[in-house]
Amino acid sequence: MSSKAPIGVFDSGVGGLTVVKEIMHQIPGETIIYFGDTARLPYGSKSKETVTTYTRQIVRFLMAKDVKAIVIACNTASAFALETVKAEFDVPIIGVVKPGAAVAADTTKNGMIGVIGTEGTIRSGIYNEFLSLTNPQVKVYGKACPLFVPLVEEGLIDDPITMEMARRYIGELIEYDIDTLVLGCTHYPLLRKTIRKIVGDQIALVNPAYETAKSLKQVLVEHALENDEVLKSDHKFFVSDGAEKFKRFANSILPCEVVETKDVNIENY
Amino acid sequence: MSSKAPIGVFDSGVGGLTVVKEIMHQIPGETIIYFGDTARLPYGSKSKETVTTYTRQIVRFLMAKDVKAIVIACNTASAFALETVKAEFDVPIIGVVKPGAAVAADTTKNGMIGVIGTEGTIRSGIYNEFLSLTNPQVKVYGKACPLFVPLVEEGLIDDPITMEMARRYIGELIEYDIDTLVLGCTHYPLLRKTIRKIVGDQIALVNPAYETAKSLKQVLVEHALENDEVLKSDHKFFVSDGAEKFKRFANSILPCEVVETKDVNIENY
Repeated sequence: MSSKAPIGVFDSGVGGLTVVKEIMHQIPGETIIYFGDTARLPYGSKSKETVTTYTRQIVRFLMAKDVKAIVIACNTASAFALETVKAEFDVPIIGVVKPGAAVAADTTKNGMIGVIGTEGTIRSGIYNEFLSLTNPQVKVYGKACPLFVPLVEEGLIDDPITMEMARRYIGELIEYDIDTLVLGCTHYPLLRKTIRKIVGDQIALVNPAYETAKSLKQVLVEHALENDEVLKSDHKFFVSDGAEKFKRFANSILPCEVVETKDVNIENY
Repeated sequence: MSSKAPIGVFDSGVGGLTVVKEIMHQIPGETIIYFGDTARLPYGSKSKETVTTYTRQIVRFLMAKDVKAIVIACNTASAFALETVKAEFDVPIIGVVKPGAAVAADTTKNGMIGVIGTEGTIRSGIYNEFLSLTNPQVKVYGKACPLFVPLVEEGLIDDPITMEMARRYIGELIEYDIDTLVLGCTHYPLLRKTIRKIVGDQIALVNPAYETAKSLKQVLVEHALENDEVLKSDHKFFVSDGAEKFKRFANSILPCEVVETKDVNIENY
């Protein structure tokens, strides 16, 4: 595998772009092949079996693009399918949950950690599992926020309705006296301002995207796959539906211009 | 084809159950095979090509169950794919749009009609098309309400947040002096109370589900496929994901008990 090969990154939709943004900042020499499964989103309300099938198809698609490593930039898919695809494919694959859990365990002072995510991520208990491994003393309070993804995909990022939903979802976590809150869905960093208004200044917000990019860098070094030349970036973006809408969104999030987004029939992989 | 054969009904999720309920009331002798594409919902934000592919797979699945007629109980799929699958399959297939448009044209007195639906349904302009055919004088005002489906699927049916979204979505239609409002998505009749509070008593609400069941009855008579014996009902419910969650919802909507819901791998059809 060449160190010049691209990195595959995927999510159910636009959320994974928050991870892409961190990768572009932290390891600017790398080229990204992104896939957003917009035809089948949201993943968060779907079963483990379904999300695993989807993840397997997307990994096959990215492998066909000769990627040197894959980032599952979706908490639900990381929770449900990471171990399965790691065992099935011969390429380094990382998820967003483990890096996020590690930084949360480092951040908390009182050991009380809140996690917000999709129904699937929260029900899986995976943050709890990783946090307990790091520090058996921490107490983890999870809360599913199923409307956050549709609200972000609708662009209601700074809106009284989103604020009211955030108040309901996060209000009960604050009562548990948490000092750290994990944004356990890659869409949620886009709601950071709203969430900050609800939690105030005393609660640390953990964005797994940042830590995932750091973790990716480490994995590339370990496998001697780091590309240390800064090349002319040739990032590519694919979606399973609505390429134009995705492109507009991507251009509002990413530091580089997304010139073209292509539709892919992902069920064929 | 035997008149004892069942009727296939499908939607992206639970919304089509509002149509099933009407069929059970109006033609109680018929047996229903229902499919909810819960793994791939929502349809409303997806492209015509994607929704057509999904519709074709579901029609194949229902044909394999030997149905005598099919109801596309989803406005988006009716708008995008009805004509295509009607041409491809040898079974009577009806959608919800034409019956809904017919009753709206009959209902309006001032010729000003509002239509609410998903992004796909509204963008397709299909209600406009059918309404203009019936009466070229009517003026149609469409408004996409993309958050209504996630709000219904989350059970926020009678909630201040849904009320606020309804006020935003429907407020501008009221200003156009409409006297008739088409609930152009099969999920929306579940929000009827909230919508009624916004529009007041002077605007008629049209629920295409009622008219679709009437239209189905007619089609069965025309094809001599009506089952006039009332049999022990043996309705069957299939979904592409989350059978248990679907069953709970179905039992809260339908007049009969849904005992079992089965998961189907719809991508194989």
